[in-house]
Amino acid sequence: MLLSGGLDSATCLAVAQAEGLAPIALSFDYGQRHDVELEAAGRIARRAGVEHVVCRIDLRAFGGSALTDDVEVPKSDGDVVPGPAEIPVTYVPARNTIFLSFALALAEVRGAEQIFIGVNAVDYSGYPDCRPEFVDAFQTMARLATKVGVEGVCAVVIRTPLIELSKAEIVTLGTRLGVDHASTISCYDPDDQGRACGRCDACRLRARGFADAGIADPTTYQ
Amino acid sequence: MLLSGGLDSATCLAVAQAEGLAPIALSFDYGQRHDVELEAAGRIARRAGVEHVVCRIDLRAFGGSALTDDVEVPKSDGDVVPGPAEIPVTYVPARNTIFLSFALALAEVRGAEQIFIGVNAVDYSGYPDCRPEFVDAFQTMARLATKVGVEGVCAVVIRTPLIELSKAEIVTLGTRLGVDHASTISCYDPDDQGRACGRCDACRLRARGFADAGIADPTTYQ
Repeated sequence: MLLSGGLDSATCLAVAQAEGLAPIALSFDYGQRHDVELEAAGRIARRAGVEHVVCRIDLRAFGGSALTDDVEVPKSDGDVVPGPAEIPVTYVPARNTIFLSFALALAEVRGAEQIFIGVNAVDYSGYPDCRPEFVDAFQTMARLATKVGVEGVCAVVIRTPLIELSKAEIVTLGTRLGVDHASTISCYDPDDQGRACGRCDACRLRARGFADAGIADPTTYQ
Repeated sequence: MLLSGGLDSATCLAVAQAEGLAPIALSFDYGQRHDVELEAAGRIARRAGVEHVVCRIDLRAFGGSALTDDVEVPKSDGDVVPGPAEIPVTYVPARNTIFLSFALALAEVRGAEQIFIGVNAVDYSGYPDCRPEFVDAFQTMARLATKVGVEGVCAVVIRTPLIELSKAEIVTLGTRLGVDHASTISCYDPDDQGRACGRCDACRLRARGFADAGIADPTTYQ
């Protein structure tokens, strides 16, 4: 399962464990500007007692995103929360495609039958590769790409347990499953101590999720 | 365009240039046991006068293939050439999926409208991710994954000019387009000087291609 260190993937991990599965957590060191995200992923995996594989890849050479470049992360003090109408500059080109491809390789090598990804098509930042139709198309492709798909032994299933949940529902589900929300980092621009800016898209979606769920927000802000 | 340093991708590059396109060559340093392959890709890109992007990724951590592990590459002195019936141990899990995903990211960042990959479904080693149905499924997924697909400005096209050619036809086409076959390396187990073993699947398919095409084989063997 893909583990970013954020609230969604931590909840996704808890869902997989609640089903009695033994997930392998996969994170990427992809030149993201905030190492604290990877540290959060490590904390979450340790706390859950699962194996954590970190794969180093080099997306920085490609450029093109505020999450890896020196572009300023957009922030706002207003109430406007981003919707699917526009794709923000924080979008990393083909990121979920790349991450799922590595997950597919790991699943094939380890004999895993499912890949969990915490994408969400409700309260999301408008990234094209978070939509259900993208995930479905990836699964179709994955079955044709792999040895197991060809040999018909088993074909990997892409699981997206959060895809139709609102952020408030994800917060509620995570609370019920014992997710340590304080360990997770959603902010696109945290400081060195992992404190959230409170003003980027990700922070605002997260804060609204806690508010709507009526659950106290344990996030440490700058 | 994906450039491995082999005969097929070098021919694919020549096809793209013959169409008047200005390709960017993309190669991967993925812990393959033979660095000479990457050097060959560099030579081919320089000779063609195209930009060469090398992306370092870490497939070794995943294991699972004779091309990245310390598993022995199967060799044979017989006449049996592998077919699609069995998937050999040299198969790298989800490799073309991973490579195409990075190509998709690069295409999106640079505004490229096509991705060329030299896969071949005729004289190939039986890898599932070389089949036309895999490529078609990847393209469908790619259009859903990307910003351009969503915004409808343009959607990337995966080009596979060699997919229906025999190895002999690829050799003939490359000769016509001026490919320097001696610069290319197909062998799964070359020595430090880039000399081919002559006995692995890739060597035998290649040698048969030159023979069937009636073109002298310029490969340097160990």
